[in-house]
Amino acid sequence: MKKIAVLLSGCGVFDGSEIHEAVLTLLALSKAGAQYQCFAPDISQLHVVNHLTGNVAAGEQRNVLVEAARIARGDILPTTALQVSEFDGLVIPGGFGAAKNLCNFAVAGAATEVAPEVSDFIQQFIAANKVVGFICIAPVMIPKLYDKGAKGTIGNDAATASAFCAMGGEHVNTPVTDIVVDSARKIVSTPAYMLAGSIAEANSGIEKLVAKVLELA
Amino acid sequence: MKKIAVLLSGCGVFDGSEIHEAVLTLLALSKAGAQYQCFAPDISQLHVVNHLTGNVAAGEQRNVLVEAARIARGDILPTTALQVSEFDGLVIPGGFGAAKNLCNFAVAGAATEVAPEVSDFIQQFIAANKVVGFICIAPVMIPKLYDKGAKGTIGNDAATASAFCAMGGEHVNTPVTDIVVDSARKIVSTPAYMLAGSIAEANSGIEKLVAKVLELA
Repeated sequence: MKKIAVLLSGCGVFDGSEIHEAVLTLLALSKAGAQYQCFAPDISQLHVVNHLTGNVAAGEQRNVLVEAARIARGDILPTTALQVSEFDGLVIPGGFGAAKNLCNFAVAGAATEVAPEVSDFIQQFIAANKVVGFICIAPVMIPKLYDKGAKGTIGNDAATASAFCAMGGEHVNTPVTDIVVDSARKIVSTPAYMLAGSIAEANSGIEKLVAKVLELA
Repeated sequence: MKKIAVLLSGCGVFDGSEIHEAVLTLLALSKAGAQYQCFAPDISQLHVVNHLTGNVAAGEQRNVLVEAARIARGDILPTTALQVSEFDGLVIPGGFGAAKNLCNFAVAGAATEVAPEVSDFIQQFIAANKVVGFICIAPVMIPKLYDKGAKGTIGNDAATASAFCAMGGEHVNTPVTDIVVDSARKIVSTPAYMLAGSIAEANSGIEKLVAKVLELA
């Protein structure tokens, strides 16, 4: 039975992991008979966003690991607890948390930096030549984590694709139902809610991504 | 195209809607080509629970509608905004929020009362003879909302089933993969995480529940 790590970034599309993408990832892994373990960095969220109004809740602080535990039903580990040899691969759902907490793309664009705890975590998979799947906006970390020319997709948003390339990646425009595979580097990506008009659309690409991750695991 | 209301109770299994159950409900509706609209009551949560430790976060307050908006990606309405004629039915996912915020079963047991905003909301569907689906622990509201003898399931937990019957309902022990249908009253229920050992198991019952809700809608 294959075992896949899932890296979360909070709980909610505007300040954490996109909840649908995270749950659809877990569902696809479970339906395929794979085991999973959720992880998140034990750091503060950049923002707390009131998801009803869309406004930042000034002065409120939440912790990425504590909020991500909601999606994981309490079964989650800090990124520092990783024993990479136990895992066959990694999947990283999207949501603004991927671009605000895992890295700072939401504020820094092409000058993005991956958070140290997060970089240490993902680099262990890369060093062990293990497959990593990136969903939605999470692929903006690909050029910072891999060597020049690493392939990925964030859908077809021109500004984001341009930043992806400016950081050294090779961006491939892709519809929501499809995935991009960098076979040499074992990277899989899909646009999900960068393009999805419905949860069923997001699911179509995520199911393909998870199937490919398990094939390469 | 059928349109189904989904009543949420926060965001997280220990103090709000069970996130997997809520998302799987939306997925099943979307895959079936149905429209959905999320609702939640604009009231305070009974508790805020740290999902990493399982402890109540003393002194912290969160609003059910604001937190439920995370699951709905911001597209949610207060229960008071319901125009019941626009909808063909209702689904209520579980999680402790259903037993702490929608009603007080978690603290009152068989003496449970449904929150006034929530009762007003659900009773509009019942009065219009529209189908209502209850998932996980949410079925404990059935005996308080319908006439004596209304059928439902919370799986097979003896104490909860006993309270269900003490309140005037007829409880039917049911495996996680199945549903109970009270055809006369248009009530559908399934155990989901009252019994599920995996998200794929929870999904099997929720898919059946949504299919039956749409059939009766």
